Amino acid sequence: MSLWRLLIGRPLKVTEAAEEEIGAPEGLAALSLDALSSIAYGPQAMLLVLAPAGVAALGLVMPLTWTIVLLLAILVFSYSQVIEAYPEGGGAYAVSKDNLGPAAGRLAGAALIVDYTLTVAVSIAAGVAMLTSAFPALLPWTVPLDLTLLLLLTGINLRGSAESGRAFLPPTLVFIVSVTVVLALGLLHALSGAPAVIHPAHPAAAAAAPAAGAVGTVGILLLLRAFASGCSALTGVEAIANGVPMFAPPRVRRAKTTEFLLGAILGVQLLGVSYLSLHYHADPALAQTVLSQVAAAVVGRGWLYYVVTLSTTAVLALAANTSYGGLPILASILARDDYLPHIFALRGDRLVYNSGILVLTALAAVLLVVANGNTNALIPLFAIGVFTGFTLSQTGMVRHWLRRRPPGYVLRAGVNGLGAVLSGGATLVFILTKFAEGAWIVTIAIPLLYVLFVRIHAYYRNLERVLRTGQTPPRPIRRSTLAVVALPGVSRLATLALSDARSLASDVLAVTVVQDPETAERIEREWEAWDPGVRLVTLTSQHTSIVRPLLRFIRSLEVRAQGRVLVLIPEVIPRRPWQRLLHNRIGVMLAAHLRAQRNVIVAMLPVHVHDPAEAAHPAGHAAGARRR
Amino acid sequence: MSLWRLLIGRPLKVTEAAEEEIGAPEGLAALSLDALSSIAYGPQAMLLVLAPAGVAALGLVMPLTWTIVLLLAILVFSYSQVIEAYPEGGGAYAVSKDNLGPAAGRLAGAALIVDYTLTVAVSIAAGVAMLTSAFPALLPWTVPLDLTLLLLLTGINLRGSAESGRAFLPPTLVFIVSVTVVLALGLLHALSGAPAVIHPAHPAAAAAAPAAGAVGTVGILLLLRAFASGCSALTGVEAIANGVPMFAPPRVRRAKTTEFLLGAILGVQLLGVSYLSLHYHADPALAQTVLSQVAAAVVGRGWLYYVVTLSTTAVLALAANTSYGGLPILASILARDDYLPHIFALRGDRLVYNSGILVLTALAAVLLVVANGNTNALIPLFAIGVFTGFTLSQTGMVRHWLRRRPPGYVLRAGVNGLGAVLSGGATLVFILTKFAEGAWIVTIAIPLLYVLFVRIHAYYRNLERVLRTGQTPPRPIRRSTLAVVALPGVSRLATLALSDARSLASDVLAVTVVQDPETAERIEREWEAWDPGVRLVTLTSQHTSIVRPLLRFIRSLEVRAQGRVLVLIPEVIPRRPWQRLLHNRIGVMLAAHLRAQRNVIVAMLPVHVHDPAEAAHPAGHAAGARRR
Repeated sequence: MSLWRLLIGRPLKVTEAAEEEIGAPEGLAALSLDALSSIAYGPQAMLLVLAPAGVAALGLVMPLTWTIVLLLAILVFSYSQVIEAYPEGGGAYAVSKDNLGPAAGRLAGAALIVDYTLTVAVSIAAGVAMLTSAFPALLPWTVPLDLTLLLLLTGINLRGSAESGRAFLPPTLVFIVSVTVVLALGLLHALSGAPAVIHPAHPAAAAAAPAAGAVGTVGILLLLRAFASGCSALTGVEAIANGVPMFAPPRVRRAKTTEFLLGAILGVQLLGVSYLSLHYHADPALAQTVLSQVAAAVVGRGWLYYVVTLSTTAVLALAANTSYGGLPILASILARDDYLPHIFALRGDRLVYNSGILVLTALAAVLLVVANGNTNALIPLFAIGVFTGFTLSQTGMVRHWLRRRPPGYVLRAGVNGLGAVLSGGATLVFILTKFAEGAWIVTIAIPLLYVLFVRIHAYYRNLERVLRTGQTPPRPIRRSTLAVVALPGVSRLATLALSDARSLASDVLAVTVVQDPETAERIEREWEAWDPGVRLVTLTSQHTSIVRPLLRFIRSLEVRAQGRVLVLIPEVIPRRPWQRLLHNRIGVMLAAHLRAQRNVIVAMLPVHVHDPAEAAHPAGHAAGARRR
Repeated sequence: MSLWRLLIGRPLKVTEAAEEEIGAPEGLAALSLDALSSIAYGPQAMLLVLAPAGVAALGLVMPLTWTIVLLLAILVFSYSQVIEAYPEGGGAYAVSKDNLGPAAGRLAGAALIVDYTLTVAVSIAAGVAMLTSAFPALLPWTVPLDLTLLLLLTGINLRGSAESGRAFLPPTLVFIVSVTVVLALGLLHALSGAPAVIHPAHPAAAAAAPAAGAVGTVGILLLLRAFASGCSALTGVEAIANGVPMFAPPRVRRAKTTEFLLGAILGVQLLGVSYLSLHYHADPALAQTVLSQVAAAVVGRGWLYYVVTLSTTAVLALAANTSYGGLPILASILARDDYLPHIFALRGDRLVYNSGILVLTALAAVLLVVANGNTNALIPLFAIGVFTGFTLSQTGMVRHWLRRRPPGYVLRAGVNGLGAVLSGGATLVFILTKFAEGAWIVTIAIPLLYVLFVRIHAYYRNLERVLRTGQTPPRPIRRSTLAVVALPGVSRLATLALSDARSLASDVLAVTVVQDPETAERIEREWEAWDPGVRLVTLTSQHTSIVRPLLRFIRSLEVRAQGRVLVLIPEVIPRRPWQRLLHNRIGVMLAAHLRAQRNVIVAMLPVHVHDPAEAAHPAGHAAGARRR
């Protein structure tokens, strides 16, 4: 417990909840890193599909990138409308539930949970890939590095107050500026007509001729697969719309500015990376990432290269962090709507949703280990969830405008409708083209989560009905109770336990289990000599188990009893934890078995043997209490 | 639980305890396999020390083997005297405690526990080594095979009735006869003067000249190390003396016959294996065991070779099984003497000591995994425990004879005294020569166990004093009890819990934790409107934890209370196990924290929400009970 405190910090008061009001630059740092950092894996994922098909296929890179940037522009406009319509934060869950009903909300919630998890895994894998690109000696340590980074994020988030736009601003700016400088230098170089260094392992050099003819035949499928991979760069475009309440007034204007800023930066950088990766013949199949290859080709492995690499790593790690901001809050909302266990709505000592954080870490760790830390293995699973969310919230927005009909609602509905159609189409493309590569997992996970939500909701509804929450319940009544004390025989333990039993219940019965009639007789004789005023029932069993005959006896009582049966189990509490091993767990096992028994209340009676007062007085604890 | 039943079988009645009366041949099968099977690793362990020192060192093999056989003869005579003196079973623990006092008993007990564990590990490792010698394809699977065999033995022993002399007789006889036939054929061959096949990798061929000169200088230490390794063949000689009560009358005569039979067979086979391993230049450093090399050299890899190999594997596995007969019973005796946790004295459903069996398996598994299934790595740890036991029980026997002074007691004491001196000397040699190779572990483990015994004994003594076991305790008294019910607010849960509380205690207090004054006011208003006849205490906390304020409140009550505080915690019991995840663990956490609290009794109140009766009636369980 104290180690936990040391790592996590003292408990915070509920009034200490961090509140920060941010502007557009901080908005980029706090809400847009997932989208901005995706230039580190998006163009690479697209190249990885096209490169093996040869030179002609590489000719599709720029047209596809332009298509993706166009989709980005439409999504940015669509989300700027979401920002206007939902200044209180329009996550896909809220917008879908609001406009399309609870079923759409559940679907959006399930899609978002899958996607937050994948964002963490992909961002960490891509971040560590940037690191190992710069320092190849670290390559064998990829998965341990992934998991270390993941644990670091978990620790920071369990401490709370991690969602700090101000703190994230410096690395974000370094990243944006350094990448832009490298891309600009590369473009200048390319436009000046200087010859590019051709990578020897590049497929364009190795296998251009035979593959060129194949483009025509597999063209459409290849095109769609490359498009689907490239769209992984668009994840996170929706985050600003979720976080409008974080902005300083005028909220809507600042949030919209941030959204457009994000769109502009991301679009330009995507085009730049794609163009230069073609120009420098970057090979997506290498262990070195495409972004790292481009940077190294433009500026060499000098200081600027390391600035780009390390700031990209940092920004990718922070991008994973934004999921830690998102999923636990989404889970808490789902829990409050009775779609997830209520524990997700409980805040821990540091005012963060511990359960959500820990579940996110566990899921991401599994993904990273299974994918062996390989970003490209995770990409096919990625983006399906986000684009499902895009589709639902854009469709919801169309409904929103058609219902309210504000001035210009036709145009607004048109923008969101275009976004919905394109997102929906992209989602279908993702599922169809990536199904065999892993997307089937997502197509199972999302419906499973949906069913889980429905079943959890049904359980809580029924519970509410049974407990009649919100109504005035009947008044409590008094009943007779029979106390049963399980004892090994006559000893001071019996005195203590029977004292408690007689204090709590009108009828008391002692019960003991023996294996042979001689022991039974001996114990009965001792009991009579003692005469504690309580009847003893001796159960003779031919088996060695003590728990089973006791259970059978208590169950038989329960059937006969007029009211409740209180089972008292004396439990010796030693001074030191290791000494617990010296006591048989019969009492604990009995309690565990009786736990779910109808009309039976189980109580453990702690007996402190190390206590000098209890050792001195016959019924020391009572005497001790009276003294005070 | 049903899988457990399937594997282990139905519970047995205590009267069903297996009783078997055996003769001398069955005695060999039931009690001597540990000793007999050691020809599979003893000579090899000795060779492994001598072979690297060259041809001259190999000249020491036969003299050393004769010394070990002489020691065997003395031990056999010594133990035949133990059999006479302790027909009720004279284990080292009993003999030492009886004659030398409890400290010697504890030391013997500790040594035996270490040794039983090592016997299991060494026998299994050697058995699997015989198997992989015959089928080298299995070599990479050594550790998994070890663990599988270990689990098989564990399962058989948890089922009980494994110690069957009759069932073990066939493989034992096959083993004794086939090994004897192979050795006899080999000797005939050797005496006929036919040339032996020289193994190409044998160190005598490869490095004879340079090593020959070194023998003179390292001679004594080498000799002692080889002797210590070879003595691993003598472990298990004491087992018959432990098991005298198993024999059919006349017990003592039959047991002594078995002991002498064991001595004769083991002595002859040790000499034969040592002689032939020299003759055939067996290489102890190979993956193939020495016994397997000898058998292959004598009869080729024909059917007789496989009979020897497989029967040796079987007998080694059964030798491990004899430790499963020994350690759990020893642990139960130590537990009854208050030296080990009492759980070791509890028999399971199948009338065997489950805890002892499981602990033995866990310890042996750790040894096998750490030693990577290599017999030679375990040999240095082996035999120290056994020979400590030999020394203590032989010393005890000297004391026994000198006390009772029966006719011929001087000679008897002399025999046991010689056994004690030689065993003690051997123990010292083992520790000194094998210390760095791993024996240090044993020299730490045995004293640690000794200290553990002393501390456990002190705990139980104190417990007995505090509980005044054996005296008539004071009679129980009646006291006032304050019941505290932790509630989230007004609901039917409150009705149920307060009904129970008012039935059990004279004073009842409800308590709830809220984070803000508004909620506090609302709940208090609802409570007043309800008017259940119980006072509500509202604890306002600025932190999110609900458990901590409740704990603080209950502890403050406990200080003020005149008697005991009964804390009632309502716990919703859902129909399906997965639904438990839908309830916060606040109640369980509170109960765990209050567990060791003085003067506090914690009771969980099960509330069955799926119960139609409880759902229909306002205080349904009481009504339901009355209906019956």
